[in-house]
Amino acid sequence: MALKAPLAYETKHHLSYYECDATGHPSLSMLISMAVQVSEEHGNSLGLDTAAIQSYGGGWVITSYEGSFAAQQPINGEEVILGTRAIANNRFFALREFWIQSADRQVEYVRLTGLFVYMNLQTRHLMSIPQAVIEPYHGPEKKRLPRLAKARELKDVRFKNDYHVRFFDIDSNRHVNNARYFDWMQDPLGAEFLTHHQLKHMTMRYEKEVRYGQTVTSEISSPYRNENGELTTDHRIVVDGQLAAASTMIWYE
Amino acid sequence: MALKAPLAYETKHHLSYYECDATGHPSLSMLISMAVQVSEEHGNSLGLDTAAIQSYGGGWVITSYEGSFAAQQPINGEEVILGTRAIANNRFFALREFWIQSADRQVEYVRLTGLFVYMNLQTRHLMSIPQAVIEPYHGPEKKRLPRLAKARELKDVRFKNDYHVRFFDIDSNRHVNNARYFDWMQDPLGAEFLTHHQLKHMTMRYEKEVRYGQTVTSEISSPYRNENGELTTDHRIVVDGQLAAASTMIWYE
Repeated sequence: MALKAPLAYETKHHLSYYECDATGHPSLSMLISMAVQVSEEHGNSLGLDTAAIQSYGGGWVITSYEGSFAAQQPINGEEVILGTRAIANNRFFALREFWIQSADRQVEYVRLTGLFVYMNLQTRHLMSIPQAVIEPYHGPEKKRLPRLAKARELKDVRFKNDYHVRFFDIDSNRHVNNARYFDWMQDPLGAEFLTHHQLKHMTMRYEKEVRYGQTVTSEISSPYRNENGELTTDHRIVVDGQLAAASTMIWYE
Repeated sequence: MALKAPLAYETKHHLSYYECDATGHPSLSMLISMAVQVSEEHGNSLGLDTAAIQSYGGGWVITSYEGSFAAQQPINGEEVILGTRAIANNRFFALREFWIQSADRQVEYVRLTGLFVYMNLQTRHLMSIPQAVIEPYHGPEKKRLPRLAKARELKDVRFKNDYHVRFFDIDSNRHVNNARYFDWMQDPLGAEFLTHHQLKHMTMRYEKEVRYGQTVTSEISSPYRNENGELTTDHRIVVDGQLAAASTMIWYE
């Protein structure tokens, strides 16, 4: 029997000024938000809106991302292509790919992979993924899924800042928008660093959900050179002494 | 000679999940951002992009807003119409109107008026508006412009919170996004108030530009009934003891 090809879903998006930061390009948190947005639209197009997904007792939760970013990034006012497809899944995990391309497809600005689980949102217990919420994506079932690169452990804290989780950090899914973690993770680097360095690669692992009203501490290592000589920073978000998220970022110079 | 009608400009916009808050509707700061976005696109369509505007030595700066909001508000995923036109201008002031409507034009969600000045962005001195940046809008010249409702003076401080101005509060215009003030202004009300009350009317006056790295204090009065019996709150943003912005908000119950 022929395998069904995974269904890709694409949409066009016009970049607004408020999705771009002082560099004139979309911030990492906005790029991640756009990825989440296109995967929601993909789900809706398959009849899998939030209500349908939650009718099986749980919801999709992101556990980790790995992303690569081109040196050329889109600008305020540009129309880009947002795309996504299911890559592979097994009983507990689903791997999804995202891309952001120029309208003429000559430049791939972002290629992102995300690993998702299906979780009871009250108890935070992992559930096996219901067939009905995964089958329509036609992602191949695999025993072993490709692994995402791991964030490195932060060894020294060079930059540090506290962030209060605000009402407007909660999105229409009624959880803290997972993309906001990237704003907290990057802001302590400061305007000088952030306007003179551009992200090349990022890996992110979510450990613990952050809630409205909490104060998170964002800690960042001194910039160092990794084994390939690339400028690298390690990041973590800590809440009440517990690790909430960890990331390693590699920068263009 | 026949007067030219003011040129309206409209565009369609698909509401993303990250533009909506926990209520499932766009936050006030996102509605304001969309208004700014459509006015930028209007300018671009007339050949008046940021570079063209600044070639005359200054830039547009918002001084005040007044807005009315329907009880029915758009939802995540909805396509809305964003519109704007010049209403009137004189030597120093330009009045601009914005609207956000349902795609079928049956509901006007937001009607907003904004008063702009043309300012030297280095010295922050008011300049007379260059003909070349205002004439293409075909707004009627008037000696006296209609006045926007004033924010009331805050008399008691019931809610209060500090906000650090972050790197990602700066937008691609390289200034703190003026819409962010509304997040600072509303957040101290708390999730309980903000999920059970909906904005009906807002008036906002910008007094002083807020800059990256500063800490702003957001202060809010106890909710009270205005002369029409409507639930009302007064808001202000203070930086270094100076008033940066003042707002009065009226709420549906």
